[in-house]
Amino acid sequence: MSKEFFTIGALLYKDYDLIDVNATLRLLGSLKDNFNIITITQTGEHVKSYTPQVANYINYNFENCPDFDILFIPGGIGTKYELENPVFLDFIKERAPRVKYVLTVCTGSGLVAKTGLLDGKKATTNKQFWDWMTSNGPNVLWVKKARWVVDGKFYTSSGVSAGMDMALGFISDVFGREAADEIAITAEYEWHDNPHWDPFAERIFGKNI
Amino acid sequence: MSKEFFTIGALLYKDYDLIDVNATLRLLGSLKDNFNIITITQTGEHVKSYTPQVANYINYNFENCPDFDILFIPGGIGTKYELENPVFLDFIKERAPRVKYVLTVCTGSGLVAKTGLLDGKKATTNKQFWDWMTSNGPNVLWVKKARWVVDGKFYTSSGVSAGMDMALGFISDVFGREAADEIAITAEYEWHDNPHWDPFAERIFGKNI
Repeated sequence: MSKEFFTIGALLYKDYDLIDVNATLRLLGSLKDNFNIITITQTGEHVKSYTPQVANYINYNFENCPDFDILFIPGGIGTKYELENPVFLDFIKERAPRVKYVLTVCTGSGLVAKTGLLDGKKATTNKQFWDWMTSNGPNVLWVKKARWVVDGKFYTSSGVSAGMDMALGFISDVFGREAADEIAITAEYEWHDNPHWDPFAERIFGKNI
Repeated sequence: MSKEFFTIGALLYKDYDLIDVNATLRLLGSLKDNFNIITITQTGEHVKSYTPQVANYINYNFENCPDFDILFIPGGIGTKYELENPVFLDFIKERAPRVKYVLTVCTGSGLVAKTGLLDGKKATTNKQFWDWMTSNGPNVLWVKKARWVVDGKFYTSSGVSAGMDMALGFISDVFGREAADEIAITAEYEWHDNPHWDPFAERIFGKNI
């Protein structure tokens, strides 16, 4: 097992998706000796997710947030507010170049695309908001049918539960296949280990995409 | 769509599992007009999950917690502490008879079993801790191979991600199959809609259970 140690900075915002954040981080954080996780919002407020009244506890705001190794950005309905929030987008623009990896789930990739950092790179996003999300990055090489996509240090996933498969894909890439399989079994989770598996894209775009 | 409205009381404790809580509640809470969710710990402390440093924001303690309609109990490594905590077990014993449904994920059913409330009822639990968990309820009719089990008002699921399938099963039972399918698709989640699907049980107990 790799001895690499990563601090993940999870960037949350009002009306984020609970699964995007917690299911993805739970699978990554299964390697307790290899990850630490900090949660961040713009003001440090414990913003609510889109699930009625449920929220994560937040550790830092944009001012007092320490360095981290992985920038993690979930999706959610609230993406629509942050796409128009220059302070939020500037935080991504300032931090992303300094981290080893950027991981996004669902519409989270739309936020990174809006900063221009995904220009010329392959990425994917939520299937139901495809036109809207991809319009934020006209120069991104968007992949329609993909559970998740890797391009350099950027890992982007499809909607919501796709973050779980991407998390295991990341574990497999960095720590080895055996580690990913072990986590999936312990979580009684049927891992879709093929990043090209995507029945939800076929549902929306047809079989011949 | 049913007009039923439920407040879920989610009972958390130190070293709970993030997926058990947030993935399950996210799928239930997709019906925003039908659910409200409150989070509870013994002292109201924002206890940490078993994932390094990540926690949910907590709304109530055992003293000031209002009535709710569904008692939700996740699993997690921390179950081992609460099995020896009479205050925690008494809270379950006091509240469970007053609610319409009790939903548990993973080792959460071990905690309910310990109170005696599952005696004579069918239930399931985490496969990896099967002997330990089932020993807390020798008079429970434990089902080895099951993604989730329903007996009266008790819904119990297998380990961790099984809570997601149970959540959609509950939605299907109460609000109809169409509602459950819609939530699964929106979350780009491949729902295991058959409660008897359980490759993890077969892995541990063999094919002929």
